[in-house]
Amino acid sequence: VDQAVHYKATIEYDGTDFLGFQVQPDGRTVQGELQTALARLNRAAPVRVRGAGRTDSGVHATGQVIDFFLDWGHGDAVLQRALNAVLPLDIAVRMLERAPAGFHPRFSATSRVYRYTIWNEPQRSPLARRTSLHVAEPLNERTMAAALQFILGEHDFASFGQPTQGESTVRRLLHATISRDGSWLFVELEASGFLYRMVRRIVGSLLVISRRQRPPEWLREVLLASDRAAAGPAVAPTGLCLTAVHYDGA
Amino acid sequence: VDQAVHYKATIEYDGTDFLGFQVQPDGRTVQGELQTALARLNRAAPVRVRGAGRTDSGVHATGQVIDFFLDWGHGDAVLQRALNAVLPLDIAVRMLERAPAGFHPRFSATSRVYRYTIWNEPQRSPLARRTSLHVAEPLNERTMAAALQFILGEHDFASFGQPTQGESTVRRLLHATISRDGSWLFVELEASGFLYRMVRRIVGSLLVISRRQRPPEWLREVLLASDRAAAGPAVAPTGLCLTAVHYDGA
Repeated sequence: VDQAVHYKATIEYDGTDFLGFQVQPDGRTVQGELQTALARLNRAAPVRVRGAGRTDSGVHATGQVIDFFLDWGHGDAVLQRALNAVLPLDIAVRMLERAPAGFHPRFSATSRVYRYTIWNEPQRSPLARRTSLHVAEPLNERTMAAALQFILGEHDFASFGQPTQGESTVRRLLHATISRDGSWLFVELEASGFLYRMVRRIVGSLLVISRRQRPPEWLREVLLASDRAAAGPAVAPTGLCLTAVHYDGA
Repeated sequence: VDQAVHYKATIEYDGTDFLGFQVQPDGRTVQGELQTALARLNRAAPVRVRGAGRTDSGVHATGQVIDFFLDWGHGDAVLQRALNAVLPLDIAVRMLERAPAGFHPRFSATSRVYRYTIWNEPQRSPLARRTSLHVAEPLNERTMAAALQFILGEHDFASFGQPTQGESTVRRLLHATISRDGSWLFVELEASGFLYRMVRRIVGSLLVISRRQRPPEWLREVLLASDRAAAGPAVAPTGLCLTAVHYDGA
């Protein structure tokens, strides 16, 4: 008599006060808070949540995708409102729908999009401090964009990160853009998948290039080295946001 | 042997964790933190800070203006960097310059600009929660803009707020605009001065009008009533930001 429906939800969160997405033995996580909220709507019976991306401590999301099974008798819009009423203020369900047959938020995904935000002004910004990295010296977005062209496409990205389990380090970087809006600089990367800290190490390497310590072509050398010691240091998680997860036919 | 220089500074702060701008007997304030930071750069001798606007608890600023006198021997750029190094992360000095002769941040000001930010989507936004008001129902910015035309110019604004001391309640509203950027709605008001909670009561009245509980012309009736019971309720401080203070010739 399992009447559970398979749901897919798009989630936004302010990562500042979380130890990342994935449940940890100690500490507050996004997955943990989602499971607690869903259990409250399920007569205290546990509900398992799966996520598309295991965002790190301090990383934000506007387009994280999760799924879960729930026996709920009151309509999807009512479920979304009920979830947003019981979830803490730093997590919200932006969209809720029925999952397609066989859907898995991580394994069905065809690509993920991350955005890294830099506040590029001589002085730091108190209002931007939770959602950006402050870089005081003027950054050259053309040089940074030129460098990104060297890593577009399918490559072994071992220099930029580790796989979560012992899998392959080959990924396909589909789009890579830099845009500026006044003092804001945005690095947007879309790939088939990302290795652990891959976006933060790519952005860290772009900063090395923008400071003219290395030419744009150096990014290709880093890639070919297949050695994590070759890349620039990972930048802070505050500037990172998972903005979208794409699926075939959606 | 007082070598003190008169400085004018433009300040940004995240108002979330402050009991407002003005020093209070108990609790953390922007003025208090600025005075503590300046005293540290003044061999622990107290430095008095004056501000252009007494922003309320929870209200933000990107363009608050302050002044102070300090005997500092190392150049203005070094002073700004030193201040930003000792200030807490939720306050920063965006600009530092020498004050003109006879300058007073409050009494020399010719106008102030406040912006009120609304997140206008069915679901709340965790990343926007500290800097906006969430309004779930779609707002009609044309109706709101039409209403604002009825209060432009010099009027007795007693219906929308109290003066901080027993002064006149006449103010000149110079500009009033509504703009939308996707789910964001911005109300921007520039006036010769603002009464206590005046922006928040004007925005609260605009919400009443947008919900079609009252026509746009009702805002003129509220104004003419000269009675605080006539206006809509004040909206939350989270969405409010002091963005600029203008002075003659600057």
